[in-house]
Amino acid sequence: MTDHLESGHDKAAVAILGLGPMGRVLAEVYVDRGHPTTVWNRTAAKAGPLVARGARLAASVDEAVAAADVTIVCLNDYASTARVLRPVGEGLRGRTVVNLTSGTPSEARETAAWMGERGARYLDGAIMVPPPLVGEPGSVFLYSGPREVFDEHRATLTGVGDPRYLGTSAELAVLYNTGLLEMMYATMNGWLHATALIDAADLPVGDFAELAFGWFVPMMFGPSTAGLAAALAEGSYPGDLGTLEMNVNALEHITRTSVEQGVPAEQPRLMLEIAERAVAQGRGGENYLAVYEVFKKRAADAGHPASSMSR
Amino acid sequence: MTDHLESGHDKAAVAILGLGPMGRVLAEVYVDRGHPTTVWNRTAAKAGPLVARGARLAASVDEAVAAADVTIVCLNDYASTARVLRPVGEGLRGRTVVNLTSGTPSEARETAAWMGERGARYLDGAIMVPPPLVGEPGSVFLYSGPREVFDEHRATLTGVGDPRYLGTSAELAVLYNTGLLEMMYATMNGWLHATALIDAADLPVGDFAELAFGWFVPMMFGPSTAGLAAALAEGSYPGDLGTLEMNVNALEHITRTSVEQGVPAEQPRLMLEIAERAVAQGRGGENYLAVYEVFKKRAADAGHPASSMSR
Repeated sequence: MTDHLESGHDKAAVAILGLGPMGRVLAEVYVDRGHPTTVWNRTAAKAGPLVARGARLAASVDEAVAAADVTIVCLNDYASTARVLRPVGEGLRGRTVVNLTSGTPSEARETAAWMGERGARYLDGAIMVPPPLVGEPGSVFLYSGPREVFDEHRATLTGVGDPRYLGTSAELAVLYNTGLLEMMYATMNGWLHATALIDAADLPVGDFAELAFGWFVPMMFGPSTAGLAAALAEGSYPGDLGTLEMNVNALEHITRTSVEQGVPAEQPRLMLEIAERAVAQGRGGENYLAVYEVFKKRAADAGHPASSMSR
Repeated sequence: MTDHLESGHDKAAVAILGLGPMGRVLAEVYVDRGHPTTVWNRTAAKAGPLVARGARLAASVDEAVAAADVTIVCLNDYASTARVLRPVGEGLRGRTVVNLTSGTPSEARETAAWMGERGARYLDGAIMVPPPLVGEPGSVFLYSGPREVFDEHRATLTGVGDPRYLGTSAELAVLYNTGLLEMMYATMNGWLHATALIDAADLPVGDFAELAFGWFVPMMFGPSTAGLAAALAEGSYPGDLGTLEMNVNALEHITRTSVEQGVPAEQPRLMLEIAERAVAQGRGGENYLAVYEVFKKRAADAGHPASSMSR
């Protein structure tokens, strides 16, 4: 049994296309876990340390794909994916390709269709952690595409992280990744900007962070917050606990405070303007979630040019 | 003892100035907890239900302040506070005034100085919950001002919520309140905008919320996140786990995805522009926290007009 594990014969053969920081660490983890691992990169020299570690360098993309049960693509963008895989042609038929390249939902859909035309079994994916955390427990990878392809390769995918299957639409992984990252950046920017306000008053930024992350964020945003999604789906925003008018007042205070403290005010001002747009829609007596109606793509917009917000 | 409690003689006498939604509920909670409670409002008629409940209506602000151990101000803004309390003049000497009005740090400082000139003992405060949650356990009120004033009245302040003392500078409560609210709005806006992206692809917004608040936010932002404040204080942003260049790439994807999905793109575009400014400062190889340097008020800015970001 140990021999088997060490020789890797009971582990799926993987190929990694693209040896940037993320591709390299994926290859390292697969080599270390005993998967027969083939690597390919446009600049073959990058593969040196991986070959020393036990990976095999493919002379061509065809060769890499042919050698592997699962080909994992980790290139700069979807355009590179198409450019690199186009020459493989019929070699893709029946092969499984997992694309961890980041991009937009339409790129994911187009790539899934392109793979389908060539007979490849295709999963789109997104890595939710930076390279050093690949292979660690709890490092989440999002996947979307045919359920049976995910199920068949779940064990292999688990080798590098905690795989979460989102559904059959190819664009799900990219879209969820985009949404979660937007939330991360928005929350970070809120904290960083708020911290600049505290600092401008010569107050200790560490104390503020303790209150913000030790109490406020966990109190405001926990698993139960997910229940608010029902209100968005229904478009129902009763103002019993507080109204958008009150929130506009608070956002004005935040904006004025930023100006007063000499800190750039663009970020709170944009939130103020967005809330004011919701009030202008007649939603001043509804609660803050009504801001969703400003963001939401409406059926009525379909025939219009892009709204004034999307320049 | 029960008689004592019921007659309220061992509870501090409070006066509430201003009977908007927040002032009314503060008065209700104090009446219900057995505090001798005096109320005043510019339009006296608003006091009717409170008087029926057991509050005393003061004929003037002087009378309200004179009747109370602690006068709690809950008006629309600091300008109203000054207008309402100016006629009291010498009547403020030796009295304790707790101002829960919202505004900017400079308004809090000016009001504290004005109160000091009149011999009043002054705390500035901020209520972190909407009116229906006043008096509930865990409803946080922030306070700043002289420590001894807070300590003396802590029991009375605890009657309406969980009081947190921040420090002696009067502006602390307003500033922390501003910062925490900015974080709340930023996180909400991130989620609402991300949800609009999911919805525009006809995907279930509830599933996304479960992943976002059930896993992502608690995983990304918990008590340990407060430790990042040390990096901000030191201005040290090593890019080992990921660089600002990579974040710019991700923010471009988010912005392009918004445009592609027909959802307003202003919000991610502003974050992209802010990150690009940090890159333009030569910080592309640092981590995302370096964005703080774009927000931070710099000593060198002191003599300059407002930066291009604060219009």
